[in-house]
Amino acid sequence: ILRPKYPVQKLYAFSTIQEVEINLTVIGQYVDYLVKEQGVKNVFVNGTTGEGLALSTQERKQLAEEWAKHAAAIGASGIAGIAPFFFKPTNKDTLVAFLREVASEAPGIPFYYYHIPPLTGVKIRVEELLDGIKEQIPTFQGVKFSDTDLLDFAQCVKNHKEQFVLLYGVDEHLLSALAVGATGAVGSTYNYLGKKNNLMLEAFAKQDLALAQRYQFCTGEFLSFVFKLGFGVAQTKAVMTFTSGIPMGPPRLPLLSASVDFIEKAKAKMTSLIL
Amino acid sequence: ILRPKYPVQKLYAFSTIQEVEINLTVIGQYVDYLVKEQGVKNVFVNGTTGEGLALSTQERKQLAEEWAKHAAAIGASGIAGIAPFFFKPTNKDTLVAFLREVASEAPGIPFYYYHIPPLTGVKIRVEELLDGIKEQIPTFQGVKFSDTDLLDFAQCVKNHKEQFVLLYGVDEHLLSALAVGATGAVGSTYNYLGKKNNLMLEAFAKQDLALAQRYQFCTGEFLSFVFKLGFGVAQTKAVMTFTSGIPMGPPRLPLLSASVDFIEKAKAKMTSLIL
Amino acid sequence: ILRPKYPVQKLYAFSTIQEVEINLTVIGQYVDYLVKEQGVKNVFVNGTTGEGLALSTQERKQLAEEWAKHAAAIGASGIAGIAPFFFKPTNKDTLVAFLREVASEAPGIPFYYYHIPPLTGVKIRVEELLDGIKEQIPTFQGVKFSDTDLLDFAQCVKNHKEQFVLLYGVDEHLLSALAVGATGAVGSTYNYLGKKNNLMLEAFAKQDLALAQRYQFCTGEFLSFVFKLGFGVAQTKAVMTFTSGIPMGPPRLPLLSASVDFIEKAKAKMTSLIL
Amino acid sequence: ILRPKYPVQKLYAFSTIQEVEINLTVIGQYVDYLVKEQGVKNVFVNGTTGEGLALSTQERKQLAEEWAKHAAAIGASGIAGIAPFFFKPTNKDTLVAFLREVASEAPGIPFYYYHIPPLTGVKIRVEELLDGIKEQIPTFQGVKFSDTDLLDFAQCVKNHKEQFVLLYGVDEHLLSALAVGATGAVGSTYNYLGKKNNLMLEAFAKQDLALAQRYQFCTGEFLSFVFKLGFGVAQTKAVMTFTSGIPMGPPRLPLLSASVDFIEKAKAKMTSLIL
Repeated sequence: ILRPKYPVQKLYAFSTIQEVEINLTVIGQYVDYLVKEQGVKNVFVNGTTGEGLALSTQERKQLAEEWAKHAAAIGASGIAGIAPFFFKPTNKDTLVAFLREVASEAPGIPFYYYHIPPLTGVKIRVEELLDGIKEQIPTFQGVKFSDTDLLDFAQCVKNHKEQFVLLYGVDEHLLSALAVGATGAVGSTYNYLGKKNNLMLEAFAKQDLALAQRYQFCTGEFLSFVFKLGFGVAQTKAVMTFTSGIPMGPPRLPLLSASVDFIEKAKAKMTSLIL
Repeated sequence: ILRPKYPVQKLYAFSTIQEVEINLTVIGQYVDYLVKEQGVKNVFVNGTTGEGLALSTQERKQLAEEWAKHAAAIGASGIAGIAPFFFKPTNKDTLVAFLREVASEAPGIPFYYYHIPPLTGVKIRVEELLDGIKEQIPTFQGVKFSDTDLLDFAQCVKNHKEQFVLLYGVDEHLLSALAVGATGAVGSTYNYLGKKNNLMLEAFAKQDLALAQRYQFCTGEFLSFVFKLGFGVAQTKAVMTFTSGIPMGPPRLPLLSASVDFIEKAKAKMTSLIL
Repeated sequence: ILRPKYPVQKLYAFSTIQEVEINLTVIGQYVDYLVKEQGVKNVFVNGTTGEGLALSTQERKQLAEEWAKHAAAIGASGIAGIAPFFFKPTNKDTLVAFLREVASEAPGIPFYYYHIPPLTGVKIRVEELLDGIKEQIPTFQGVKFSDTDLLDFAQCVKNHKEQFVLLYGVDEHLLSALAVGATGAVGSTYNYLGKKNNLMLEAFAKQDLALAQRYQFCTGEFLSFVFKLGFGVAQTKAVMTFTSGIPMGPPRLPLLSASVDFIEKAKAKMTSLIL
Repeated sequence: ILRPKYPVQKLYAFSTIQEVEINLTVIGQYVDYLVKEQGVKNVFVNGTTGEGLALSTQERKQLAEEWAKHAAAIGASGIAGIAPFFFKPTNKDTLVAFLREVASEAPGIPFYYYHIPPLTGVKIRVEELLDGIKEQIPTFQGVKFSDTDLLDFAQCVKNHKEQFVLLYGVDEHLLSALAVGATGAVGSTYNYLGKKNNLMLEAFAKQDLALAQRYQFCTGEFLSFVFKLGFGVAQTKAVMTFTSGIPMGPPRLPLLSASVDFIEKAKAKMTSLIL
């Protein structure tokens, strides 16, 4: 509007920065590791830890196909959609309208809503969202609930546990979510603490709460420690690498690789976690 | 990790929803309107108001070309980059590394940083960012500063006004930013209050502050009114439509078109704005 | 600094507004109700629900004495201190220094830290606070933890459950906190849902998680409902009144009494809560 | 509710911690300094910088009397009230009801509302608050506006500049507030940069904007520098001490005295501020 010193006509573009290439060759090996060493039953491809938002559509397809090839025996597939988070939906109707459009692109495939308000800023309560959603989205099948609002989660369990899959996504609070009825979990720590978490699930199922607590405290102790050092997706990749022995590679910008100092401290902490 | 009732292998994808098609045919007409009726000197294509983030790369290219064709006489072009806002950079170095990658894709074109923390959540101070940025990004030319931190903005003016273009982007605070040295403005209200803003700039240049205030209060009165009704990009499009007489079309999801009630009230308010 | 139109020399004062008088006569009756009808074991006087911050020092003393007189049989007394929340402590050392000063005023009385970040804005982790606190505050005995950060709470349990009392204060998440080792609870819903919560504790102790969930869902269903209507301390008083039949009186400013509409809806919801 | 290990009956008290005594003897000397060296016209007693909230009622009275004694020649007195910030008013009516109660305690004295949302968390727009307030609070005379929402402030100027005194309280944005019509300023930097600010006001009055900017940038440069070091009321006292040569004494808890390192750096920066 004002005359700036240098006349400019701005052209505005968003793109992914692909300075780091994806490596499909380690996926088969990593699937084996997750199944055998960590007892993982399902995988969540192109999510937060997988840096799905830093990938091009083409790359996301390649990754989904490669994981599916190696994971074929595991079961049926599904799609999860996140809330849009630049322009944020401010009420249930807008969010449902958006998710319906996404889900309708794949009418035969179960659809899940990935609720992660700390990253999206979209705080519409899931209890409210689920009310009547099956009429709007026939393929709707469940939620990945990555938030600490356990009142909202408990209301979902209370009202919808027969109809929907309610997966909990805050790993350090999983035992608390189990107490109010979570029937599954999706999270990044299961890449390296999956085995301990499976033991926690077994202890919980046998009503041995004291033992379950010891396993939960194990995850809590590790996360409390690394949170103080600064812990994000880049650091998670480093932990996955030193735990599995399979190189996860560097992250893409704006993430930077974990420091050597972080890796040494995290490794020492992991080693110290005994029961 | 847990065995959910229905085994799922999730495939995760992000895509733009293209249920509304872009209409290139009105652009020439709208360029004429902006230049003749509103006195706009430059355009910012595929930005927030243009819903750049709801468009595919292909669509963004089409729009940029169409606008450039009609706006050729205006001057040289530039590129603006926003901070990544899912994984958010937490320090200057990471943000600069990201912007450098974007800028390096078009080595001959002036590059601008689009600072808009209310939408991105990235609050790295621009004063700090600009310090030494020319060595990192040779094409760096300026900032679109869309925030109310006028201390940060004033420090940018103080330290960099000779070197960079400092455009201010909070339209209702523009007179306050001019007072500390803004040399340009980019904003959505200039689509419909551009003329009044140009008169404000003239009054300010002639040191007639009382008159400049009257024009600024005009924008403030309108925005205060519509903010109470709920005002976002969808509502902006509606105001642009009834002001210019050129149909802006509906927004894309998750935005929903402005209500008839909003349009009537906003139109009445706009009409009442006299000096 | 500037010459305002009317010269002013401002004198600044903070005071409590005592337009509503406290009523000591119903306390004995209410203690009886809490013990007999709700199974409450201890009382927390002059806290949030008691509007402690809207009372003068004189009034707080009167209330503490009156409650103590009627509650003498229950047990020993203690003091709880909240973090200062206008000037907020930004690190552990400052907060400990403050709490030490408060605790040292009553050297023979057990001291508790009341952690309630949603109201104080003070987010210093309790895990960190407890580390070494006994050396600083010899009377330190425990925490009322009113926050949803169950990782922090679990770390407190893990590291300090032998030494300190760890009371949980988010009533709708209590079952989740029990799962990670809470040994007590303090909360406003126990005024009117105390009995159901005691039944939940019994079910949990007997490892009947399904039954415990039904009681927890009962509290959750009530709170989810009233939260949508607007629910604060004033509304809590109204619920306490219609549940106990003992008049709690109006709140003090800036709180306003609950509306008739709220009371009718909340009463209907409460009546509908069956197991 | 649960039986904790140690039965507790908590008695809850709030009090000010008076480990540091107020020193009335330096006030006369400091009044002289402010008037002669900094050109200050009015004083705001027991405010944020004066740690009003860390003082007992008795102490606040002593201070107000001592300041008034020495400042008698300056002019008439007034009272300012802040919004309550533990229980926060959520709408205009509640806030007005609260302020009316405070103001009615001193029916002959002009009353000011002290708007400081960054510390109180109360974000009710002042434009809305002022609408009709004179009918509710006959002594209402103006606002100390300590926020960066210059749209709200400009609307206050537009609608109420004839009727109310509108004092601006974000010192580093003062020039921007002057541009939209501020008629006075209250702030802590005027204790040590009052003279430069008065020169800025003179330059602004003479329409010498370039000179006014140089003075504003001076305050901005100092604050940008100390903000990075950590800057609060304790550090302000230290700066006031080394600038005036009059000892301000230590702050009360939870504030801790500024470090020697801070003082040295701040002093060096202050010395370097030339025009």
